Amino acid sequence: MGMRWIYLDHSATTPVDPRVVEAMQPYFTEIYGNSASIHRFGRAAARALEESRRTVAEILGCHPTEVVFTGSGTESDNLALRGVAFAQRRAGRGHHLIVSSVEHHAVLNTARQLEEVFGFEVTYLPVDEYGMVDPDEVGRAIRKDTILISVMYANNEVGTIQPIAEIARIARARGIPFHTDAVQAGGMLDLDVNRLGVDLMTLSAHKFYGPKGVGVLYIRQGTPYLPVITGGGHERGRRAGTVNVAGIVGLATALRLAQESRESENARLRRLRDRLIQGILERVPEARLTGHPTERLPHHASFVFRGINGEELLLALDVEGIAASTGSACTSGRPEPSEVLLAMGLPHEWAVGSLRLTLGKSNTEEDIETVLEVLPRAVARLREMQAIEV
Amino acid sequence: MGMRWIYLDHSATTPVDPRVVEAMQPYFTEIYGNSASIHRFGRAAARALEESRRTVAEILGCHPTEVVFTGSGTESDNLALRGVAFAQRRAGRGHHLIVSSVEHHAVLNTARQLEEVFGFEVTYLPVDEYGMVDPDEVGRAIRKDTILISVMYANNEVGTIQPIAEIARIARARGIPFHTDAVQAGGMLDLDVNRLGVDLMTLSAHKFYGPKGVGVLYIRQGTPYLPVITGGGHERGRRAGTVNVAGIVGLATALRLAQESRESENARLRRLRDRLIQGILERVPEARLTGHPTERLPHHASFVFRGINGEELLLALDVEGIAASTGSACTSGRPEPSEVLLAMGLPHEWAVGSLRLTLGKSNTEEDIETVLEVLPRAVARLREMQAIEV
Repeated sequence: MGMRWIYLDHSATTPVDPRVVEAMQPYFTEIYGNSASIHRFGRAAARALEESRRTVAEILGCHPTEVVFTGSGTESDNLALRGVAFAQRRAGRGHHLIVSSVEHHAVLNTARQLEEVFGFEVTYLPVDEYGMVDPDEVGRAIRKDTILISVMYANNEVGTIQPIAEIARIARARGIPFHTDAVQAGGMLDLDVNRLGVDLMTLSAHKFYGPKGVGVLYIRQGTPYLPVITGGGHERGRRAGTVNVAGIVGLATALRLAQESRESENARLRRLRDRLIQGILERVPEARLTGHPTERLPHHASFVFRGINGEELLLALDVEGIAASTGSACTSGRPEPSEVLLAMGLPHEWAVGSLRLTLGKSNTEEDIETVLEVLPRAVARLREMQAIEV
Repeated sequence: MGMRWIYLDHSATTPVDPRVVEAMQPYFTEIYGNSASIHRFGRAAARALEESRRTVAEILGCHPTEVVFTGSGTESDNLALRGVAFAQRRAGRGHHLIVSSVEHHAVLNTARQLEEVFGFEVTYLPVDEYGMVDPDEVGRAIRKDTILISVMYANNEVGTIQPIAEIARIARARGIPFHTDAVQAGGMLDLDVNRLGVDLMTLSAHKFYGPKGVGVLYIRQGTPYLPVITGGGHERGRRAGTVNVAGIVGLATALRLAQESRESENARLRRLRDRLIQGILERVPEARLTGHPTERLPHHASFVFRGINGEELLLALDVEGIAASTGSACTSGRPEPSEVLLAMGLPHEWAVGSLRLTLGKSNTEEDIETVLEVLPRAVARLREMQAIEV
């Protein structure tokens, strides 16, 4: 690629850190045993697996046996919701779930299927104009037959950080398992499950410079859980399937690196992001920041521009060498406005014009200045074209 | 490792082919976009994904849209059984499944959970002394409310190849979707879904020199299917989760390489395997070949030795530098005799003494001669020790 590309879509995915790629290499061709095999090749793989599990457990402040490796963040969310819901119903504890209305589709669509196909009932918690859940609303939504609460740690589309610890206290006081999708928080926020008070937590390696295709589901000991991917006894019977040792070594290495440098890197990203937000709001007319102004992920800037088609803006930026997102990679391609933005009360003519810029290790001040030059022109041009069409 | 290790556990897992590792590399640090993103980084990833899908589709003789990439063979089996079972029941077609009694645990334990937790009924087909399913038995087991049949292509523990095409004809004549777990067959047998006549087929990359953590589920167009890992619209709504592009490129590359060389490599493995089987049956008293004598995977030799503890034999071989298995890596560590061997009618004192030797690319005639020297001594020593203990 001749020109310098500016990648501002780190909430969609990140490049794998070269140190992580390096750490994974031996597990492809040398230490290739099946970690369930009892011979030397298997034991060498099992050692790497358990070392990775300890690394993750240390960061989460939990026991290694509470760490389950999965194939993705989406899979972890599915195992959490389905696993707890089916186990609880089987034990006769009820069939009511509570999730926020701004969850990632991995939670939201799973909750909907549990409702539509499997006879569960779901309460979708409202959010305020910043996309934030009110813990009091959680308390009010709880019923006698509530069996699971799931509220994400930080929102992918608008970056808002939820009051997880407060919600966890409410859930715990009522004896209801609490799951948080921490996919966006993984490399950036405190993941101590006891400080957070969560019973289940989802992580995904590729959001913090690890490989795609590997995730974590933390399950607090004693949490009701029915495995819904069944087979061999891997991961203590909680997630069957030959263990992806290379990927797991990659995940653990990436999580360790991200958590080690997160304070300094977060400060750097916050500076760049604040400059970006301030510059865009100054230079683009009829622009709004979406999500919470302060309680947001340090690398996350998200906007709406009135009367703009977000996808057209993306393509205009792409031509100029800037990779961005309308909000969530997982729903790109659809013309509808984001459910998250609608849940926050944004009117349709604003909500369709969303733009998410998420920074990462490769980004510099120069990148920010380039965006601040290119973006206002792109928005103005799209508005002109629409005025002509009308 | 100082001594030369002999790896004879290729049915548990294989090392990744260096050409496959090479093919995966760019997708970690360069072409790292999320394939669901619409910018340049995303489109580059999506191109690699779709090229891999075409490669797999060509080998399967199907349309690329019928290929779904998953996180493992176990996951593919789960998606097939759960996905079809729930969709069929939802459509009011019934709740009866047919599986063979020698399936991998990914199928068997999933069928059991569908029975015990979700109210389905399951018929477990018997097998003959070679572990083979009689297609007539399939016909007899079919009921009006049968909604899915699942019989594996080749057995992992005893290597027997099932009469898939005949079973498929019976299933199709009755309009019942037919799934085959082809995990063990992936690199070795014909995978053309139309010659086989299957509606769903499971593959796993790490069984044919590809990476762990990536699988395929072939789903014939029109097959009833409810996604049970839900979230974003990835894989046309059939399997949510950010797509593991590097792993999928690895899978496709490995499958192509394995299928290209399978005739010559199978012939080579068959010669080595036959020498191994003949030598062991000649030199070890009270030894039997398990599985079919001719209709078996070309690399697969499996035995029982009367009065031996299979795990003790494995450890004795491990000390001598030979990596083998009792049958299935996924159940290793358990002292019970294999369900597969019991289903084949082997008495307990034979069934606990199982040994599986599965050959692969690295194995040579010298390896075979070493095993033929070491194994008879190891069996004799274990029998002596047991005689003393008694």
